Amino acid sequence: MMYGAIEAGGTKFVCAISDERGELKEKISIPTTTPEETLEHVFNYFDSFELSAIGIGSFGPIDVNPTSPTYGYVTTTPKTAWKNFDFLGAIKKRYAIPIGWTTDVNAAALGEVKKGAAMGLSSCVYLTVGTGIGGGAVVNGELLSGYGHPEMGHIMVRLHPDETFKGTCPYHGNCLEGIAAGPAIEQRYGKTGHELTSDSAVWEMEAYYIAQALMNYTLIVSPERIVLGGGVMKQAQLFPLIRQEFEKLMGDYVELPPLEEYIVPPALGDNAGITGCLLLAAEQLTN
Amino acid sequence: MMYGAIEAGGTKFVCAISDERGELKEKISIPTTTPEETLEHVFNYFDSFELSAIGIGSFGPIDVNPTSPTYGYVTTTPKTAWKNFDFLGAIKKRYAIPIGWTTDVNAAALGEVKKGAAMGLSSCVYLTVGTGIGGGAVVNGELLSGYGHPEMGHIMVRLHPDETFKGTCPYHGNCLEGIAAGPAIEQRYGKTGHELTSDSAVWEMEAYYIAQALMNYTLIVSPERIVLGGGVMKQAQLFPLIRQEFEKLMGDYVELPPLEEYIVPPALGDNAGITGCLLLAAEQLTN
Repeated sequence: MMYGAIEAGGTKFVCAISDERGELKEKISIPTTTPEETLEHVFNYFDSFELSAIGIGSFGPIDVNPTSPTYGYVTTTPKTAWKNFDFLGAIKKRYAIPIGWTTDVNAAALGEVKKGAAMGLSSCVYLTVGTGIGGGAVVNGELLSGYGHPEMGHIMVRLHPDETFKGTCPYHGNCLEGIAAGPAIEQRYGKTGHELTSDSAVWEMEAYYIAQALMNYTLIVSPERIVLGGGVMKQAQLFPLIRQEFEKLMGDYVELPPLEEYIVPPALGDNAGITGCLLLAAEQLTN
Repeated sequence: MMYGAIEAGGTKFVCAISDERGELKEKISIPTTTPEETLEHVFNYFDSFELSAIGIGSFGPIDVNPTSPTYGYVTTTPKTAWKNFDFLGAIKKRYAIPIGWTTDVNAAALGEVKKGAAMGLSSCVYLTVGTGIGGGAVVNGELLSGYGHPEMGHIMVRLHPDETFKGTCPYHGNCLEGIAAGPAIEQRYGKTGHELTSDSAVWEMEAYYIAQALMNYTLIVSPERIVLGGGVMKQAQLFPLIRQEFEKLMGDYVELPPLEEYIVPPALGDNAGITGCLLLAAEQLTN
């Protein structure tokens, strides 16, 4: 029994296969170009294995509603080549095996709950802060979805008193992603995050926004843990700043674990998503 | 087989019993005073029936974490007589039968999903806008809880450009509840909502806040429907204003049902919570 996994990101696809026990065995990385070209590489890789199931965690928005006519499609993405592309359908056409389908961040949340920083818990929010901001969650042991999937990166947050930047989001301007993702930092200051590492004002403002988002996730979903991944979160100085701002905002209103245990980096690092995709593949055969 | 239900609100307790089929048979209302006095009335009522299980939906915050030493307590409520009161323990001491325990708004969400405006769906957010603002949710067919329960009324929203009011929340000042619950309306304008019914600016500002909250709930939980209840929502002119503002904010980013079907009043009216409590009681015997 061997599983395949696709973590489909906006800039790269990671494909992996498991060993017989379902553990990550090997993975490759493919640049995300057009659907045809990218999937050609995916097929070339998977064709040489005998897979029992595949798990896909895709960038979004995607249609995860099994009753919808466009179930399995990538929908309103700004990446035009992928807009309204029947991603799940293309994989199903090639491989007549069970295929799990969710968002990249839901997959990462699943990975962190089952094998990572939230192991042993039945709920967790996973937020990635990188070129975009996206969140997924596990609630009562199951992936969070309803009419669609979460799009936690696009919530509205209160603007910082010193904010002058208009925001980068084509849909919402200065929603969380629009003012706090990597491109917002770069455009606001004209420098990359790496070049700004020692500038404390940059990270205080960033923490101000992320802490507000975590407050809202906490008050709405009440997860047992929040895992923060993605390129921007590699600025490790952000963690204490976020916890401090979060504590101030929450005002002791709800009971929470110690914040060092509540707001944490991913234990699986960059493998959170692909690990979750393998777990999702395995779930297809047990459900 | 007969069930008991307690919908414990900050101003009144509603107690009900079901008929043999689990349907609401009769209910009484008791003013919320001290725990001792209020529960005396509850006991007087329930003692004359032979109940198989009880469901409690309580005002909060409450401790819903079964592994916590204060499980079943009312916790940081501003109602001092109830602060740190072992509510569930007091009911269990009196009745040695299975007892379900959740928030009043989670109970209302359950009622609306099983028998009300979200019947047939597996997810729904229920928000009450009244003397306070509280939200509950059903996700994947189950009540939403994790480390604790949702406290959706206390999220941060962006302030209206014309806002001058400081907010009433003792914990967060101008969080959603602090600027958009009934008391905020009264204090901001020096008049009750009823006296302001024809003042369109009042309801446009109210809709501005509630729509932001619904945007965040939508992007975080992705429910199939949102049910808006509570005293303030009896201002029926709010519904179209909220839908309009919500549509503007969302910017067509995610696929949603037509908003007239997505943002709706409770079908069970004021019986949403107590109906959910009866369902919760019944669940104690089937789980």
